[in-house]
Amino acid sequence: MEFVSPIDALFLLAESREHPMHVGGLMLFEPPEDAAPDFARRTYEKMLRENSLHPTFRKRPATWLGAPQFGWAQDADIELAYHVRRAALPAPGGQQQLLDLASRLHSSLLDRHRPLWEMHMIEGSGDGRFALYTKMHHALIDGVAGQRLIRRTMTEDATSDEFRVPWNLPSTRTSRPSETSGSAFGSTARQLLAAATSVPGLARTARDALLRQQLTMPFSAPRTLFNVPIGGARRVAVRSWPLERVKQVAKSTGSTINDVVLAMSAGALRGFLMEREALPDKPMIAMVPLSLRDEDDNEPGGNKICAILCNLATDLPDPLARLEVIKGSMNRNKDVYRGLSNTQAMALSALTLSPIAMSLLPALTSVTNPPFNIVISNVPGAREPLYWNGARLDAGYPMSIPLDGQAANITLTTNGANLDFGIVGCRRSVPHLDRILGHLENSLTALEDSL
Amino acid sequence: MEFVSPIDALFLLAESREHPMHVGGLMLFEPPEDAAPDFARRTYEKMLRENSLHPTFRKRPATWLGAPQFGWAQDADIELAYHVRRAALPAPGGQQQLLDLASRLHSSLLDRHRPLWEMHMIEGSGDGRFALYTKMHHALIDGVAGQRLIRRTMTEDATSDEFRVPWNLPSTRTSRPSETSGSAFGSTARQLLAAATSVPGLARTARDALLRQQLTMPFSAPRTLFNVPIGGARRVAVRSWPLERVKQVAKSTGSTINDVVLAMSAGALRGFLMEREALPDKPMIAMVPLSLRDEDDNEPGGNKICAILCNLATDLPDPLARLEVIKGSMNRNKDVYRGLSNTQAMALSALTLSPIAMSLLPALTSVTNPPFNIVISNVPGAREPLYWNGARLDAGYPMSIPLDGQAANITLTTNGANLDFGIVGCRRSVPHLDRILGHLENSLTALEDSL
Repeated sequence: MEFVSPIDALFLLAESREHPMHVGGLMLFEPPEDAAPDFARRTYEKMLRENSLHPTFRKRPATWLGAPQFGWAQDADIELAYHVRRAALPAPGGQQQLLDLASRLHSSLLDRHRPLWEMHMIEGSGDGRFALYTKMHHALIDGVAGQRLIRRTMTEDATSDEFRVPWNLPSTRTSRPSETSGSAFGSTARQLLAAATSVPGLARTARDALLRQQLTMPFSAPRTLFNVPIGGARRVAVRSWPLERVKQVAKSTGSTINDVVLAMSAGALRGFLMEREALPDKPMIAMVPLSLRDEDDNEPGGNKICAILCNLATDLPDPLARLEVIKGSMNRNKDVYRGLSNTQAMALSALTLSPIAMSLLPALTSVTNPPFNIVISNVPGAREPLYWNGARLDAGYPMSIPLDGQAANITLTTNGANLDFGIVGCRRSVPHLDRILGHLENSLTALEDSL
Repeated sequence: MEFVSPIDALFLLAESREHPMHVGGLMLFEPPEDAAPDFARRTYEKMLRENSLHPTFRKRPATWLGAPQFGWAQDADIELAYHVRRAALPAPGGQQQLLDLASRLHSSLLDRHRPLWEMHMIEGSGDGRFALYTKMHHALIDGVAGQRLIRRTMTEDATSDEFRVPWNLPSTRTSRPSETSGSAFGSTARQLLAAATSVPGLARTARDALLRQQLTMPFSAPRTLFNVPIGGARRVAVRSWPLERVKQVAKSTGSTINDVVLAMSAGALRGFLMEREALPDKPMIAMVPLSLRDEDDNEPGGNKICAILCNLATDLPDPLARLEVIKGSMNRNKDVYRGLSNTQAMALSALTLSPIAMSLLPALTSVTNPPFNIVISNVPGAREPLYWNGARLDAGYPMSIPLDGQAANITLTTNGANLDFGIVGCRRSVPHLDRILGHLENSLTALEDSL
């Protein structure tokens, strides 16, 4: 039996029916032009034949008779068809039906008696495409590493014959799977957390660092409908935007792509809340995980992941004025970040990049006094079109974890010429989550129109 | 706020991710001959228009912020499309795909933040039929009452224009829904349990009564693979048999239909366990809920529901010899039952008809020393063909609740000219559950061949 690392154990212990602790993703594929009508089904059967599993995909909590989870067992008897499933959309098989299904799949708990992952091949889309929904427990992998893992199953070569599945990928130098470490696929945040001497110490240091960022804000974060206790059911909403549109706004305003994405999100949140007559007077604050790198610093270790508090200026009606406030806020807090000690920076990064770490710090999930209103996360993606079994990846939407006090989450990633947004919310606390999509489009259009 | 009755509260408290406490059913429908291809979808849309809900279908546990469940709240803001959903089968849309989906639907927990029920309209069956999977929490309704409720939405008139859904049925004299009682749809067992003065007293009385039945057995129940702790995932297996075949065996052997059903099940369990080299030397014992009625007694109140322990004679290779032992065992224990005091009979009935009550009595879910090996339950059904929205009910399979120590459950019901078997098992403890179906057929054939 392998011992569960303390951090991974926390993910297992913190999970409840109201707080599933899995990350996921929804990918849309366009089969090759000469594909047979049952291409998706044949691809599914090909997946089932890949029955050699990496140890990470074989391990399950070892003690499951009411005792706490202290160990991982290697499951010797994997039922691959349990983990890798087929589903279909009812007619007409459009976006609505796909998101209904993805919402349900993202709501249900993983079975603790089996390795904590699932993949669903979704057929029956009206336009000939198929989808793949992936779900992995955060105790196995975090969102960023999960996205990276999925990308590694794909290739830029449309004609490649190689067929890869996440559960039996060969090791790489940068993420070396290991039979003995529970954090085999862990990202930087996970490793930072694991390196912390104590959780209370980490939380204290992180709170201090957070406070220094908060001091740059005109107000503390207001309470919004996103900052409430959550239920167990989820709703997901996804949409892609051409990266070029965002780039144009960034170029004309001297902003970064991330600044524009934040302004786009800020306008959408403003519109969504106004529609519900729930817009707070004070500006909303986002938590933005960001990779900061000094220009002279070419070492991989010089890559500093940090968590920036950003004033979203949702109180301002003018989109350009909002973008300016966001730019200023991001720059100011990047500077604050640079001024933090390494320990502080590490603590804050670890804390804000891990949903469970967030929930360890009561202040972060406070309902009356949220330190920020929503996490908006831009996960690194691919600039070139990707293919899997010859099918083109049209979109890949990340799906993260809402928490008490953080009832919705916006995560996006680059996929070829597109920005793919995946929004996950508590189905009860955040009704009509999908309306945020329309507001995102309106918000981007408003930015374009005001140039 | 309405208070949750103590019994209903037990169902809520006992539920965990390993032990979902919902009962369900899977119904197959044949659309009318002149139906449009989108008949199922139109029927679904018709369901959504029935947005007036009976209070039982509006209530949810009132306190959901970590506190125990002491009250029901009436949910004022029902999202009907959350409870009533559409799903589709991947190609070819056969029995395998249907049961894969039903297994998953029966595995997931109901959301405690909403009224505790779901209905799934399942399209995409290859043969033009559609299916309906229903799921209700045992705190709202028990299995027998649930089956009765579903039947009440149907009619013997294929041409009837009336469209009924379970959540807004008019009251009847025999099961009068009430706004003030948590047991509005409760069956006899539920009412008996509620009437008991104390749970420990009830458990003690039931154990005494059980013991008197056990004394008629040659051995105590052996430990089998069905008597183990269970996980959260389920597998369901269903199949229909012509009632006429069972009737013929009953007639030729002077047995009741129920005796033959038990012999058929006994042979199947024997075959299933032999295949896995796991057949115990000693005969398995079933718990059989049964309605006993004195012939002169025509009052509805004279209907005595009891729980009979039955020696399944799984140690005997000869099917007729097995049937004889089963007949004798049933008759002997019906007599024991008649000799019990009313309180004892009530306690035992209540206990064995309610899965949660079973789990209250440690002896009943003991893994080392099970008092019986499996529950085999024949739920009253309809002798005439039934229709819903003009579609003929081809089959209606009940799905019950496995428990620790009772990893599988066989429930069947009459539907027109058929006996519909619904078997539910823990997906991990009872692998290849569906093979029991083939063994049921073999077992019935063996009985027929030996006449």
